[in-house]
Amino acid sequence: DFMHALEEVKAAFGVSEEELETAMAAGILHFSPYIENILKDGRLFVDLVRTSATTSLLSISKDSNFPFIKLVSAENMVGFSEMAKIQYLNKVFSDAYKSPQNIVVIDNIERIIEWVPIGPRFSNPVLQALMVLLTKQPPAPRRLLIIGTTSQRSVLKQLDLQAIFNRELAVPNVNTHAELASILREVQAFDSENGLVQSLNELRDITGTDQVGVGIKKVLLAVGEAKQEVGNVESRFAEVIAQQIAASRD
Amino acid sequence: DFMHALEEVKAAFGVSEEELETAMAAGILHFSPYIENILKDGRLFVDLVRTSATTSLLSISKDSNFPFIKLVSAENMVGFSEMAKIQYLNKVFSDAYKSPQNIVVIDNIERIIEWVPIGPRFSNPVLQALMVLLTKQPPAPRRLLIIGTTSQRSVLKQLDLQAIFNRELAVPNVNTHAELASILREVQAFDSENGLVQSLNELRDITGTDQVGVGIKKVLLAVGEAKQEVGNVESRFAEVIAQQIAASRD
Amino acid sequence: DFMHALEEVKAAFGVSEEELETAMAAGILHFSPYIENILKDGRLFVDLVRTSATTSLLSISKDSNFPFIKLVSAENMVGFSEMAKIQYLNKVFSDAYKSPQNIVVIDNIERIIEWVPIGPRFSNPVLQALMVLLTKQPPAPRRLLIIGTTSQRSVLKQLDLQAIFNRELAVPNVNTHAELASILREVQAFDSENGLVQSLNELRDITGTDQVGVGIKKVLLAVGEAKQEVGNVESRFAEVIAQQIAASRD
Amino acid sequence: DFMHALEEVKAAFGVSEEELETAMAAGILHFSPYIENILKDGRLFVDLVRTSATTSLLSISKDSNFPFIKLVSAENMVGFSEMAKIQYLNKVFSDAYKSPQNIVVIDNIERIIEWVPIGPRFSNPVLQALMVLLTKQPPAPRRLLIIGTTSQRSVLKQLDLQAIFNRELAVPNVNTHAELASILREVQAFDSENGLVQSLNELRDITGTDQVGVGIKKVLLAVGEAKQEVGNVESRFAEVIAQQIAASRD
Amino acid sequence: DFMHALEEVKAAFGVSEEELETAMAAGILHFSPYIENILKDGRLFVDLVRTSATTSLLSISKDSNFPFIKLVSAENMVGFSEMAKIQYLNKVFSDAYKSPQNIVVIDNIERIIEWVPIGPRFSNPVLQALMVLLTKQPPAPRRLLIIGTTSQRSVLKQLDLQAIFNRELAVPNVNTHAELASILREVQAFDSENGLVQSLNELRDITGTDQVGVGIKKVLLAVGEAKQEVGNVESRFAEVIAQQIAASRD
Amino acid sequence: DFMHALEEVKAAFGVSEEELETAMAAGILHFSPYIENILKDGRLFVDLVRTSATTSLLSISKDSNFPFIKLVSAENMVGFSEMAKIQYLNKVFSDAYKSPQNIVVIDNIERIIEWVPIGPRFSNPVLQALMVLLTKQPPAPRRLLIIGTTSQRSVLKQLDLQAIFNRELAVPNVNTHAELASILREVQAFDSENGLVQSLNELRDITGTDQVGVGIKKVLLAVGEAKQEVGNVESRFAEVIAQQIAASRD
Ligand SMILES: Nc1ncnc2c1ncn2[C@@H]1O[C@H](COP(=O)(O)OP(=O)(O)OP(=O)(O)O)[C@@H](O)[C@H]1O
Ligand SMILES: Nc1ncnc2c1ncn2[C@@H]1O[C@H](COP(=O)(O)OP(=O)(O)OP(=O)(O)O)[C@@H](O)[C@H]1O
Ligand SMILES: Nc1ncnc2c1ncn2[C@@H]1O[C@H](COP(=O)(O)OP(=O)(O)OP(=O)(O)O)[C@@H](O)[C@H]1O
Ligand SMILES: Nc1ncnc2c1ncn2[C@@H]1O[C@H](COP(=O)(O)OP(=O)(O)OP(=O)(O)O)[C@@H](O)[C@H]1O
Ligand SMILES: Nc1ncnc2c1ncn2[C@@H]1O[C@H](COP(=O)(O)OP(=O)(O)OP(=O)(O)O)[C@@H](O)[C@H]1O
Ligand SMILES: Nc1ncnc2c1ncn2[C@@H]1O[C@H](COP(=O)(O)OP(=O)(O)OP(=O)(O)O)[C@@H](O)[C@H]1O
Ligand SMILES: [Mg+2]
Ligand SMILES: [Mg+2]
Ligand SMILES: [Mg+2]
Ligand SMILES: [Mg+2]
Ligand SMILES: [Mg+2]
Ligand SMILES: [Mg+2]
Repeated sequence: DFMHALEEVKAAFGVSEEELETAMAAGILHFSPYIENILKDGRLFVDLVRTSATTSLLSISKDSNFPFIKLVSAENMVGFSEMAKIQYLNKVFSDAYKSPQNIVVIDNIERIIEWVPIGPRFSNPVLQALMVLLTKQPPAPRRLLIIGTTSQRSVLKQLDLQAIFNRELAVPNVNTHAELASILREVQAFDSENGLVQSLNELRDITGTDQVGVGIKKVLLAVGEAKQEVGNVESRFAEVIAQQIAASRD
Repeated sequence: DFMHALEEVKAAFGVSEEELETAMAAGILHFSPYIENILKDGRLFVDLVRTSATTSLLSISKDSNFPFIKLVSAENMVGFSEMAKIQYLNKVFSDAYKSPQNIVVIDNIERIIEWVPIGPRFSNPVLQALMVLLTKQPPAPRRLLIIGTTSQRSVLKQLDLQAIFNRELAVPNVNTHAELASILREVQAFDSENGLVQSLNELRDITGTDQVGVGIKKVLLAVGEAKQEVGNVESRFAEVIAQQIAASRD
Repeated sequence: DFMHALEEVKAAFGVSEEELETAMAAGILHFSPYIENILKDGRLFVDLVRTSATTSLLSISKDSNFPFIKLVSAENMVGFSEMAKIQYLNKVFSDAYKSPQNIVVIDNIERIIEWVPIGPRFSNPVLQALMVLLTKQPPAPRRLLIIGTTSQRSVLKQLDLQAIFNRELAVPNVNTHAELASILREVQAFDSENGLVQSLNELRDITGTDQVGVGIKKVLLAVGEAKQEVGNVESRFAEVIAQQIAASRD
Repeated sequence: DFMHALEEVKAAFGVSEEELETAMAAGILHFSPYIENILKDGRLFVDLVRTSATTSLLSISKDSNFPFIKLVSAENMVGFSEMAKIQYLNKVFSDAYKSPQNIVVIDNIERIIEWVPIGPRFSNPVLQALMVLLTKQPPAPRRLLIIGTTSQRSVLKQLDLQAIFNRELAVPNVNTHAELASILREVQAFDSENGLVQSLNELRDITGTDQVGVGIKKVLLAVGEAKQEVGNVESRFAEVIAQQIAASRD
Repeated sequence: DFMHALEEVKAAFGVSEEELETAMAAGILHFSPYIENILKDGRLFVDLVRTSATTSLLSISKDSNFPFIKLVSAENMVGFSEMAKIQYLNKVFSDAYKSPQNIVVIDNIERIIEWVPIGPRFSNPVLQALMVLLTKQPPAPRRLLIIGTTSQRSVLKQLDLQAIFNRELAVPNVNTHAELASILREVQAFDSENGLVQSLNELRDITGTDQVGVGIKKVLLAVGEAKQEVGNVESRFAEVIAQQIAASRD
Repeated sequence: DFMHALEEVKAAFGVSEEELETAMAAGILHFSPYIENILKDGRLFVDLVRTSATTSLLSISKDSNFPFIKLVSAENMVGFSEMAKIQYLNKVFSDAYKSPQNIVVIDNIERIIEWVPIGPRFSNPVLQALMVLLTKQPPAPRRLLIIGTTSQRSVLKQLDLQAIFNRELAVPNVNTHAELASILREVQAFDSENGLVQSLNELRDITGTDQVGVGIKKVLLAVGEAKQEVGNVESRFAEVIAQQIAASRD
């Protein structure tokens, strides 16, 4: 299974074990055929792809021939001045040029450039450094795969950052009851298939639709929340996920 | 009663006695069934909730299994530079990762990020650090419950901060004469039930409605103010609370 | 009379004599019943009031049980950096927590936060520190009365500062000829009641109304200006005050 | 004449001779009855006036009983940081409090606060310091006359600065041919009264009006310019002043 | 061929070999007659031209009589402060004045001035230094050819930078199937002419047009991507380039 | 001729030979009667004029009685901080006050204040220092002629800078074929008058008008460019200048 696969990969990647473990703690559930495509696409075009969303990118890089991977995340830069961030980024890329084939993952780009929609404000020096580093050619014959993730595609577009990436992959929400059911089965949310059917029926009664449109993270949290209400897991799950659907629309 | 319960909790929480005592000095009055729900909700979903309003959250955490609690408040950061604030926040979270289960309470988020509606202005570096720290996964198998409070929900929404919290609880105003009466009884505002009825009748005469819509803090202040006018407490309370109702509408 | 009363108070207040003397040099004239109300109100609700306008607040605090008073004014902070201002404010409040009952007067809040309507601009760090300090509970069982003054009520409202104060008192202008006459009599502006009547008649001829709408400070300055034109004081006063009325409307 | 009067005053004023000499080099021409009024007004209300325009204010202060005068001008602050400007202003006022009666002249306020209409931008810290210093009461029984000048009255109004001054005096342009003729005679612009008439006729032919609307400084410069074209002074003056009139309208 | 020509040039240019090699790694494909014109134009007016787009400019300078060339790129300034950037620019120009004939290439001007369309923001000090240096005359009899490149012509126009350049050259996209075919042939994208025809037919089927409108860089990447899908190169190329065409329109 | 005249002047001016030589390298061509007027005007009113455009101002000052001249240009301030610029400006003016008669030339004012139309942005501290220095009276009996140049008259107007100058001179473009012909003859652009006629005819054929509207600098560059295409100079000149005319309109 995935957690096992991950362990094999870790050594190859050369990143600290703890970092990767945290980032991929949940495993990847294959809830829609689209996810399969991302992974297939990812493997196939691994030297071209620069895409979005933390979890799937690690899976993509797994089968590639790039032996080293470096994860750049705002979490490692809390309290850094702008200049310190730029130097950190610059160092990551300089190091990456030293081995023949590399992957640099820039996770949550909007957080690294300190984007906030009010204003809007962001760190232009960090953005500019990132733009230069993303465009810079590694000295021949070195190769570098750069993967970026974001939950604010339109922001990157406005900032002329999107055009720098050669290829874009969207990470889908859980969109239908069918996809939802596949996840609930995989994580064994309910004791029986009957419970699953009952819960989804209750959900359909509340929302009046088969549409879901909620991220997988919120689905998994709802499962955890429902399981605490022993004896009433099915109804509680329907309630909570209905709230999430409503919230995602407001 | 509550003050007693609090004392039991204090030791368990591991926060300084004085800090908690100040924050919860008034006790929690259960003036509406909705408050009951918040507390029940809180207990139930203690590992999911990230919610709003200082007083109720401490009650929520009381019955949880989290042995340590840390209160982050702008009051402890007066005169801090942006960088010092960020380092303080970072330290709180780093410390929280050290024990297996923790609660971090971020009180009055809008004050910590220095929000002001004119401009609007706020400290983007502090906001960004907060966003990263709120999203960061504690190293497995540690668990962390983060609770935030605010009186400016819409601000948090505009700042993309609200979406980081998994669950939201609204703290209600005192809305009806019935709720108002229950509070007045609990704090023994008047010498007799007759006095209570008379005061609320006078209030109804002034406002022409049973609606109140005033925070419990202002109700308690009005009681204190009325009690100073010995021999005329009922009328004075009606007057003062009527002014508050009018002010809350302008 | 007032100046005498003031002397009794000074010792009790514990503020430097010169500071108070400067601030209250003119004495308080009771030109309208409304002023009486402010003072009565002030005495009554001294532990709740946080209000506006330098002169009247010192009178309010006179009969209170608060033995210490601290005046925070932009005049003492000229040339301070933002950080120095915040530290000064912080120190005032910290000191105030040390004695059991205190009054802190924040005079001309709009000047302390460096408000200017063009932009608008102001010092957000100072504003934020003020908001936190105004909201902070003194450690039990200490009590603290905070009084703020401003001539820009709407600014404070826009900045969410007004809501922090529990109670608001407006300081009125001199609005009618009757109020104006009472002041002119108290300060003995003219040699005779005939002169007073003549002067107000001339004023009514110029303005065509009994409305005044000018602050008491400008009235007193007009008296001083008129008195310099010996032999023509009545006409000159009417002229000058008519100019002030016109200016206050443009 | 004026230059003589000035010399008598200088000693009394206690300002450096050279500074005053530069500022008043041109003498004051009494080209309109309005100027007379300003001077009369100025003398009369010398303890109330805070007004505009460098030249006339020195004349105003001449007959006052204030023995010391201090000129605050942006010319003495070129290259100062904001903080240095504030400290300079603070020192001027502190010094002024030391002698019993003083005049402080703030020349060209818009330049001291670094006003520019694009933006608009200005130094808010300097403005705020100025506002506080202008409002501050000198310690009793000291008296302080503050005179400010500006060529941007509306700017001061927008900045809430105008309201701080108790009285306002406008310095007029040269508005009519009659006023213009009186100046030309006083400075002996032409060799004969005939020349004067001829020149103003030519001017009327060009502009088609008796209106002038040009500052006295530009009139004096035009005289100097015309005098260089020996043999054609009258026509040249008419040409140049017509250009100035046109420019002042565009 | 080109790579050979380049080698001859390198010595003459006096730039570091590695820098040039990286910048021109791909060689110049002559895909449209327009490109020929740029090169011809470039050669002809080499002492006048200041133009756009990294690759072609090096070809332009090849046949000129300017023996030294200096490449100014944001890649060499990552992490520089504004002041350091300005000093770097200043040094490049000062050095260039030392030899009798020079070329300075300013690559990606919008990146050097840290342009971002949101705001918009950019480094005005760097821009201003650049404007002055671009306009400055080298001390006679020295000559200096300055070539600038940008992918944001309209930005340069808004910044008054465009007017400083005497001449402007546009670098075209690959616009037609004919141009696309010429490139595919030159890089031997497919095994046979048949494959080429098939692939372009498939492309025409998808897009419904002969228009392309994609930069040559993306065409070359698409070739690389297609070649990985052995046995299906033609269809895959059509798919990928169709996506690029769609993306360039959205 | 002009270059000769210049040499005579240089000694008198006391500026470094190289600086002047660079600034006036091209000589002044008298292409329109208007230029003659500027020079006449300039000579006549040399103690009043503050005007625009580098080349003509040096000619203006040649016949004046001012023995010293100081050129202030952004080229000498590249990499200066705001404060360093202000100190440099301040020093130039202080030095100028030391000799009895002086000229200070402020070249390209918009560059010195770092103006950019996007925003717009500029250095307000430098602008303010400039405004004060331009207005300041030199200590009597010293005289100072200040000449400013700009290619952005409307910017100076918006910044209230234009009003500080007493007189304004516009430097014209080459506007008609007649003016163009006079320049082409003076610089011997073509071998024969026939060639000149032919070239202007071709130009008229392309543009369909006798209007030119191009600065003299671009005309001279076009001549240089055309001369490189030996055997085709006339047609090439018509082509290039037609492009310039088109560009000046877009
Ligand atoms: N395919 C999946 N299978 C199982 N769990 C998943 C899957 N994708 C995401 N998750 C869960 O959702 C959580 C968040 O996923 P991830 O961090 O990849 O999302 P993201 O798009 O990067 O979000 P963010 O914007 O917060 O960075 C993961 O910790 C994991 O628990
Ligand atoms: N349920 C309650 N019972 C009794 N008193 C209460 C209750 N809730 C609030 N109070 C009183 O109101 C005061 C303010 O409450 P609390 O600080 O929790 O409000 P808040 O929503 O956090 O307001 P703020 O925005 O000022 O932080 C408390 O000090 C307490 O006196
Ligand atoms: N009731 C009063 N009786 C007599 N004089 C008064 C009275 N109120 C104000 N004054 C006079 O007006 C002056 C200004 O009053 P005060 O400083 O209280 O006004 P304020 O509202 O605080 O104005 P500011 O906005 O300038 O601070 C005082 O110095 C005093 O001379
Ligand atoms: N009444 C007057 N008689 C003679 N000359 C005058 C008079 N008023 C002004 N001037 C001349 O005009 C010049 C400018 O006057 P002044 O400096 O007082 O004007 P200002 O309004 O202060 O202008 P600024 O805005 O430049 O400070 C003086 O140097 C003087 O030459
Ligand atoms: N005529 C050409 N022939 C072959 N390859 C080319 C040609 N022009 C560009 N390329 C390829 O496209 C890549 C990008 O070209 P270049 O750097 O010149 O583009 P640019 O316009 O400067 O883009 P950027 O905006 O990224 O600086 C080059 O590395 C090269 O691979
Ligand atoms: N009348 C003239 N005769 C000959 N050449 C001229 C003339 N005027 C300008 N030039 C040429 O044009 C060039 C630019 O002129 P100048 O520097 O005076 O223009 P400017 O208006 O100051 O432009 P900028 O805005 O770039 O400062 C000069 O170097 C010179 O070659
Ligand atoms: Mg992520
Ligand atoms: Mg709270
Ligand atoms: Mg006051
Ligand atoms: Mg002046
Ligand atoms: Mg490039
Ligand atoms: Mg110039």
